Amino acid sequence: MHILVTNDDGIDSPGIYALVQALRTVGKVSVVAPDRQQSAVGHALTVSSPLRATKIRRDGAFFGYAINGTPADCVKIGICSLLEEKADLLVSGINHGSNTSKNILYSGTVSAATEGMMMGLPSIAVSIDSLDYKTDCTVAAEYAAKLAAQYFALNVPADIVLNVNVPAIAKEHIKGFRVTKQGTSGWEDAYERRLDPMGREYFWLSGHYNSKDTDENTDEGAMKAGYVSVTPIQYQLTATDFMSRLDITP
Amino acid sequence: MHILVTNDDGIDSPGIYALVQALRTVGKVSVVAPDRQQSAVGHALTVSSPLRATKIRRDGAFFGYAINGTPADCVKIGICSLLEEKADLLVSGINHGSNTSKNILYSGTVSAATEGMMMGLPSIAVSIDSLDYKTDCTVAAEYAAKLAAQYFALNVPADIVLNVNVPAIAKEHIKGFRVTKQGTSGWEDAYERRLDPMGREYFWLSGHYNSKDTDENTDEGAMKAGYVSVTPIQYQLTATDFMSRLDITP
Repeated sequence: MHILVTNDDGIDSPGIYALVQALRTVGKVSVVAPDRQQSAVGHALTVSSPLRATKIRRDGAFFGYAINGTPADCVKIGICSLLEEKADLLVSGINHGSNTSKNILYSGTVSAATEGMMMGLPSIAVSIDSLDYKTDCTVAAEYAAKLAAQYFALNVPADIVLNVNVPAIAKEHIKGFRVTKQGTSGWEDAYERRLDPMGREYFWLSGHYNSKDTDENTDEGAMKAGYVSVTPIQYQLTATDFMSRLDITP
Repeated sequence: MHILVTNDDGIDSPGIYALVQALRTVGKVSVVAPDRQQSAVGHALTVSSPLRATKIRRDGAFFGYAINGTPADCVKIGICSLLEEKADLLVSGINHGSNTSKNILYSGTVSAATEGMMMGLPSIAVSIDSLDYKTDCTVAAEYAAKLAAQYFALNVPADIVLNVNVPAIAKEHIKGFRVTKQGTSGWEDAYERRLDPMGREYFWLSGHYNSKDTDENTDEGAMKAGYVSVTPIQYQLTATDFMSRLDITP
């Protein structure tokens, strides 16, 4: 199996390093990842400027390509131009910070997997429930590898992405995989209004996350209860049930 | 009615100007839009740098705020910090270039409406099927205003965004509104590999759009057939039917 790995924390992040180590027990791994932190870029693409691919070495050997673009850019350019042989699977992560509930929409990690799926590549996104770069990602990477190893036995339809969220707890406390649905938690936004050294006003996004999904059948609730949450997600967005009731006057 | 208007082509684009003119016949309009072109940014947020809000005048009067950020940033900061009174409706557009089928996922225009919906504001995204900035947006703006005027009579559920795509044809050829589902057309990607003046390699995204939705019940198909396509979209992404069949080995 040939696995393309990307992320949104950048090619230097500990999360992608742990993921690559674990996936090498499953198959051949190729890495194409952003050259810097790209959190909250969602499904952004770079269309107005050129992309560069820089070869990165790690542990004395070629590790992968660093791209001056977004996670979705990395997937596109990886598949179209950089991989020497076709990939069988894409794994995006391990993201520092969970990507559950409404956060899926902002997530570069999930969007990379979505891009992979749209390009015909089976895709998995993996996140760990800690924003701290010092959090050990080894256990999350092991679960990612377990899922990757059995991926083709799961018969996942081609239009579905698996979105995985792992709790940041000791291995012995993890209760195993749990299939979940997307929760409804979200951010309560606020902007801090500040003055720069020249006395000019600027705004900085702050706010807090309102975690209201306690149901263990949701991504957020399962992860908080100690499960490795696996949510099958798809992007046919039509609100089908409402279509027949939408009666627009000409 | 107080309408918040944003877009992803930037506050100087002809599309937002036409939209504002038309919506002023429906209610009070406030504008918070990016200070420059932001196409294909998807649902990106600016989290690592400060935002500035610059007052812009047009036709001798205050027109709106220009933000050095993404469409989703504009919606968040507009609602949280800039609007003096609460908005009742968000209209995002008019985007130059359709946002149908898979393109919805890359669209800053649609993502602004999604952000509005997530913040509790009823939201509409409007695009015209022409990338040419010289294309007249007056008719598309009239349809947007017609929809905005009757929005609250349509009883759209709070978690649904209306995604509108208008053909770039003469008014008399437009066949009226048509409620549609999201199509399946998409891009076939390619990267051009070039050399810069220093002889170093770079890549530029190209490719072509593969329009395969001829069914007039799809967004793409309806728009191409001369209808103003209105697709109700929602972001509960769980592939519910597949959940029970996803049997992961521990």
